[in-house]
Amino acid sequence: MASQPSSVDMPRISASYRIETPLDPERAALAMAGEQSSGTFLKLAGETDALRERHAARVEAVSSLMACDTPSLPGCLSGDTYQQADVTLSWPLENIGASLSNLMATILGNLTELRELSGFRLTDIALPDTFIKAMPGPQFSVSGTRQLAGVDRGPLVGTIIKPSVGLSPEETAALVKQLVEAGIDFIKDDELIADPPYSPLAERVPAVMRVIEDHAQRTGRKPMYAFNITGDLDEMRQRHDLVRDHGGTCVMASVNWIGMGSLTALRRHAQLPIHGHRNGWGLFYRHPQLGIDYRAYQTLLRLAGADHLHVNGLGSKFAEADASVIDSARACLTPLLEAPDRDDCAMPVFSSAQTIHQVPATFAALKSTDLIYTCGGGIMGHPDGVASGCRGIRAAWDATSRGISLEEYAKQEPDLAVALRAFSRPFSG
Amino acid sequence: MASQPSSVDMPRISASYRIETPLDPERAALAMAGEQSSGTFLKLAGETDALRERHAARVEAVSSLMACDTPSLPGCLSGDTYQQADVTLSWPLENIGASLSNLMATILGNLTELRELSGFRLTDIALPDTFIKAMPGPQFSVSGTRQLAGVDRGPLVGTIIKPSVGLSPEETAALVKQLVEAGIDFIKDDELIADPPYSPLAERVPAVMRVIEDHAQRTGRKPMYAFNITGDLDEMRQRHDLVRDHGGTCVMASVNWIGMGSLTALRRHAQLPIHGHRNGWGLFYRHPQLGIDYRAYQTLLRLAGADHLHVNGLGSKFAEADASVIDSARACLTPLLEAPDRDDCAMPVFSSAQTIHQVPATFAALKSTDLIYTCGGGIMGHPDGVASGCRGIRAAWDATSRGISLEEYAKQEPDLAVALRAFSRPFSG
Repeated sequence: MASQPSSVDMPRISASYRIETPLDPERAALAMAGEQSSGTFLKLAGETDALRERHAARVEAVSSLMACDTPSLPGCLSGDTYQQADVTLSWPLENIGASLSNLMATILGNLTELRELSGFRLTDIALPDTFIKAMPGPQFSVSGTRQLAGVDRGPLVGTIIKPSVGLSPEETAALVKQLVEAGIDFIKDDELIADPPYSPLAERVPAVMRVIEDHAQRTGRKPMYAFNITGDLDEMRQRHDLVRDHGGTCVMASVNWIGMGSLTALRRHAQLPIHGHRNGWGLFYRHPQLGIDYRAYQTLLRLAGADHLHVNGLGSKFAEADASVIDSARACLTPLLEAPDRDDCAMPVFSSAQTIHQVPATFAALKSTDLIYTCGGGIMGHPDGVASGCRGIRAAWDATSRGISLEEYAKQEPDLAVALRAFSRPFSG
Repeated sequence: MASQPSSVDMPRISASYRIETPLDPERAALAMAGEQSSGTFLKLAGETDALRERHAARVEAVSSLMACDTPSLPGCLSGDTYQQADVTLSWPLENIGASLSNLMATILGNLTELRELSGFRLTDIALPDTFIKAMPGPQFSVSGTRQLAGVDRGPLVGTIIKPSVGLSPEETAALVKQLVEAGIDFIKDDELIADPPYSPLAERVPAVMRVIEDHAQRTGRKPMYAFNITGDLDEMRQRHDLVRDHGGTCVMASVNWIGMGSLTALRRHAQLPIHGHRNGWGLFYRHPQLGIDYRAYQTLLRLAGADHLHVNGLGSKFAEADASVIDSARACLTPLLEAPDRDDCAMPVFSSAQTIHQVPATFAALKSTDLIYTCGGGIMGHPDGVASGCRGIRAAWDATSRGISLEEYAKQEPDLAVALRAFSRPFSG
């Protein structure tokens, strides 16, 4: 038998966690590692030292943080205090192979249920280049999206079709006509509409694309429309082809519900950018001691092939803190490979109660305009109409990226001046 | 234009939630309904009264519960108190169509992020028969699984291959040989092993099935082995076919990571029972004011096509409360249709630190043996060996389902007598 490579040479994946535990954090980390390797309470006959040396999860780092008197999550072992700690575990890549679903079973899996933990949050993932390169990754990313949408610089100014439910294909197309004539770069279906009986994609796609193709013929610019093709994989492939065959340039899916396996398979089939909608994400972030940081999750979604990923927005109507929004967007714009041989970022998609007011703080935090900035009321609610709404948003980004205040720039941009007076400042941010 | 059916006649889906809110619960419920229908802060031009009447989510019930001084989740609006309430919303089926992924976008979606809520938990779902009948549902359920495994009565006595990682195909097959000779009904891969380089399914399936087919030839009984085929859909279909072609009778998938879309598509392809592993489920249940009750989630997984679903076990090593385990198992065994025309239950799978000791309480709560009872140490750790371990577990279920105490039955069943002395009583239960 040929000698096998030593375990120290093998590439490893690692995952970091913020835990809380009634135990000594070192002991809790060992319990985590044990659960995610041999996984039982008995020393097993088949579990030789060589096998353990080669395959066991390893505790890479434990650093203790504050302690509290009551556990954040019920069901844990009882203790005198509950200590928070940052823990990093690692596994040989060989345990998993190049599979995102199985990566998740390994780095999350039963850890979420351990009695040894009164708090569990996955905070980061580090993957070897061999894993990253084996994944499809974003096919279009920033540059491909810009090219398809005909937007060389600045964010894609976008909106979402509202009301979210109930419009017929022809009503949707009429709204799209109004929006493209007003100069919008990007339009998306709401996540509440995919292929319902009152607006089947087989009718909505041709109706909308007739309007967009007609506009492109006349103006030379083809705004991007993200059709919500969420469904089972066979449905999504058919719907993708339908969109492509009618000249569409983007498909959207609710990534949490189709799952990592379907997203990967959709990407391998796709010839269009995939707009990843993360509805339901609140389940993973709303409690600080339970869940997944988007910094970690967006890595998986990008590897599976998402080109655009939602991040909420500053001062949104949602519960996410502004700092988390920015951390998420920065993560989406950070290359996965240290020496990238392809464009593997996802364009962050800002949404929810966005107007001209959030532009300066968003740019100041990101130092980038490689993003999709979607507004509903922030465009439609402009007193002078939708075209002025689009021009106002674009002017706000022009000003900001040139280092000019909105107020100053408004002196030469009347649509921005009107917007500044019309929209109230956001909740926070 | 033909008159459309009135909205009161249309079948509706409904979802129930335990919420916590700084607002009057009625107002919070209206905010939830608004977010999941028209979904913006402006009254929209296209949103006519007729459209709203036909498509808007409806608040069906609100019942207030206790209030507390501090919010369970951060990021919510501030209030003097935070009131818990049970809320039921409904939507016309027409909004969604027969799609599980899009159902989830509607009943969960952005609700998880609303500032109006300081607690959010989906507790139940009620679906019209037209939706249920349009879904594939379990193909084998209890009766088909019993037939394939050759177990007419009592639970399937099962175990999980451990160590979870590192065994080669031949080492796995050798362990399987020992287990089937000891009389086991059911064996599953661990969720940590799917198709890794050290044990590819293309080698593990033939190696394991050679042992099982040989045993079946000799004894006339073919134990069921659930191969973990978790991956993207194309991989899962190929792996399913591989298992089928070698005479295998079950495939397993990590349902939370493959996603609802892949599970549905796998079911439509499958000719074998699908063993649904819910690793990662802790993310959804560990905080009482955030997440999803399994009662609701198992409905979706069954509709997608899971034949077996994990429920933990009484007195397990995990954080789930015993009451939740029993509620989950009962839900899996409750038909989805009021007048079922097919067997649509999922067999609940008990696991984690199970021994003979949990049998009486499990049966007392369920009044059923339509389940898979998996033990690791509870079988392998029997002092007289694995065969005695299997016989001990089976004797415990025989006794219990005949209304005889374990102690009494042990007088005639020496393997049970030894087990009673060997295994300590569980943590709780």
